[in-house]
Amino acid sequence: MRLVEKTIRNIKSLDHEAMRKARVHQDNLTKPAGSLGRLEELAIKVCGIRGEFRPVLGKKRVVVFAGDHGVVEESISAYPQAVTAQMVHNFLNRGAAINAIASRNGAEVQVVDMGVNHDFGALPGLLAKKAAKGTSNFTRGPAMSMEELHWCLEAGIESAHQAKSEGVDLIAAGDMGIGNTTSASALFCAYLGFSPGSVAGPGAGIRPEQVRHKAEVVRKALRANKNSLSCPYRILAALGGFEIAGMTGLFLGACEKRMVALVDGFIATSAAVAAIRICPRVKDLLIFSHLSEEPGHRRVLEKLKARPLLSLDLRLGEGTGACLAMSLVEAALACHNQMATFRSAGVSGKEK
Amino acid sequence: MRLVEKTIRNIKSLDHEAMRKARVHQDNLTKPAGSLGRLEELAIKVCGIRGEFRPVLGKKRVVVFAGDHGVVEESISAYPQAVTAQMVHNFLNRGAAINAIASRNGAEVQVVDMGVNHDFGALPGLLAKKAAKGTSNFTRGPAMSMEELHWCLEAGIESAHQAKSEGVDLIAAGDMGIGNTTSASALFCAYLGFSPGSVAGPGAGIRPEQVRHKAEVVRKALRANKNSLSCPYRILAALGGFEIAGMTGLFLGACEKRMVALVDGFIATSAAVAAIRICPRVKDLLIFSHLSEEPGHRRVLEKLKARPLLSLDLRLGEGTGACLAMSLVEAALACHNQMATFRSAGVSGKEK
Repeated sequence: MRLVEKTIRNIKSLDHEAMRKARVHQDNLTKPAGSLGRLEELAIKVCGIRGEFRPVLGKKRVVVFAGDHGVVEESISAYPQAVTAQMVHNFLNRGAAINAIASRNGAEVQVVDMGVNHDFGALPGLLAKKAAKGTSNFTRGPAMSMEELHWCLEAGIESAHQAKSEGVDLIAAGDMGIGNTTSASALFCAYLGFSPGSVAGPGAGIRPEQVRHKAEVVRKALRANKNSLSCPYRILAALGGFEIAGMTGLFLGACEKRMVALVDGFIATSAAVAAIRICPRVKDLLIFSHLSEEPGHRRVLEKLKARPLLSLDLRLGEGTGACLAMSLVEAALACHNQMATFRSAGVSGKEK
Repeated sequence: MRLVEKTIRNIKSLDHEAMRKARVHQDNLTKPAGSLGRLEELAIKVCGIRGEFRPVLGKKRVVVFAGDHGVVEESISAYPQAVTAQMVHNFLNRGAAINAIASRNGAEVQVVDMGVNHDFGALPGLLAKKAAKGTSNFTRGPAMSMEELHWCLEAGIESAHQAKSEGVDLIAAGDMGIGNTTSASALFCAYLGFSPGSVAGPGAGIRPEQVRHKAEVVRKALRANKNSLSCPYRILAALGGFEIAGMTGLFLGACEKRMVALVDGFIATSAAVAAIRICPRVKDLLIFSHLSEEPGHRRVLEKLKARPLLSLDLRLGEGTGACLAMSLVEAALACHNQMATFRSAGVSGKEK
């Protein structure tokens, strides 16, 4: 049996008994019932994910998956492809936004080369999982082969397993890949039935006429791959990216290990949707961390009935929004685990 | 000259030259320009507050001001007045939500008795600044005398000065006081022209018919104090609470000392509005941290043209939302100060 199938079999649903106990506990804490709002929901959900009603989380990690996209040939990005490799160096030198945010929030950053179009050699700190030097241009056929897809899914699952074995309980997947909003847009069309015009957006900063071109490129990709759009794996191979498939694997592996997994923005959400299509139980286990400034993200989250925790106009990727939300998860659990109860603190309850 | 007048004189506007330099610096960092969204705005604003373009912040503190309200005689709260004193004990025993969140975020908690209807004696950790054992019922006249008001404002200013001298640069004011959403609602009516029905809400959890009664109580308070509603100080004395006036003082003192001051929810916003009316330069210097679940808060923030950082359905007070937002301020500054530039990292810029 393939690793991905084994992983899926091991994924359990939310533990509703732990959540019920957590809810009772929340109502005994010294605050008006419900007054911590989404922090209460969040704490209760974490209890459901972990399967215990007073969970304590270990280390935090952001795994940043990098990969290049053949579709950049179609001029859909504001930046040259070389930026993907340059940013990998920047991550390793701790110069990127995710490094700054992770360092503030006490999270580790792991960088994985899933398929950057650059030969890094043996670079300290870089996990080498290169499937190929970038995907194929998916306006002419599938972005990757099924073998490459499984390589990427397994690399992602293994990165979750490795994290778990190293004491990580709170995990996020980040992305780096010039051209990947085009890939994510195509995935949203194929998985969720969106039209290219409703999900293609400015990405890292293209002009309105370029956005229209980008939607046309997505349309072309959907036509070129129309015979692959019936199975969730084949959709991901046809329209995904190596880094997106890696993130999909990470979400599956994190859910299997009952880690608390945070979904970042537009790209990470496309990987989450793939994971949900591959294993629907994943849907309730993931936490959507923030609403991206990329306009299609709001539509996608609405369709998923997912309410993100933060809305800060971010449109950077790298796991930045997910890493910011880690402090909310920890604050929610701090309240859940450390607050006094009405009885223990001798505080009077509601009058009527 | 009174301390409050001296404080106001020393309050400087945002430093626009520091902000201009900060904006240029942000655009050189290794990310698409603007892609960190509100984190960029936040970092630039902090530069304006501090008057330097690469600010480094020291310690974090939440000052929780507690006071009781004579208006509880009118049955406007879901909880008995005794809860104010009980929660002060809970704060000191580190059992409240603000203790858990502050401990997660590395912030200190200071508790100030501004006028709780309880004799605490000499309680370790409690700063004793009691103006009286609760305000007067403001449906029959002013909540406090002008002497009491100045006592509270000075106590708040001094708590900001003390924090500054102890190395605090990031500060929030929290509140505890059964009945204080009624006081805050009355202040919003008097300062901003709202009708009682548009700002009175469920507070800690009263039913719809009780909310209507609460609005009627606010109407009565405005009538009873109609001759005091022309001057910002007299409004605060007429309709405020001791803890609210203390928070107003804290905001004034924090702005004077160029501290980064975060406004919490409904109650803290009423104190911020008082501070803004007393010294309009304060408006641009404060950071509104979150949108409360209390329905009137959205209307008030819209009127102030203030966009809060978080929206988590909190309605607890204590400084909880402000303390959560501290991690965003720190993450914004971490990016501002630690990220590489395109040049230093050798990352290519935008193509066209």
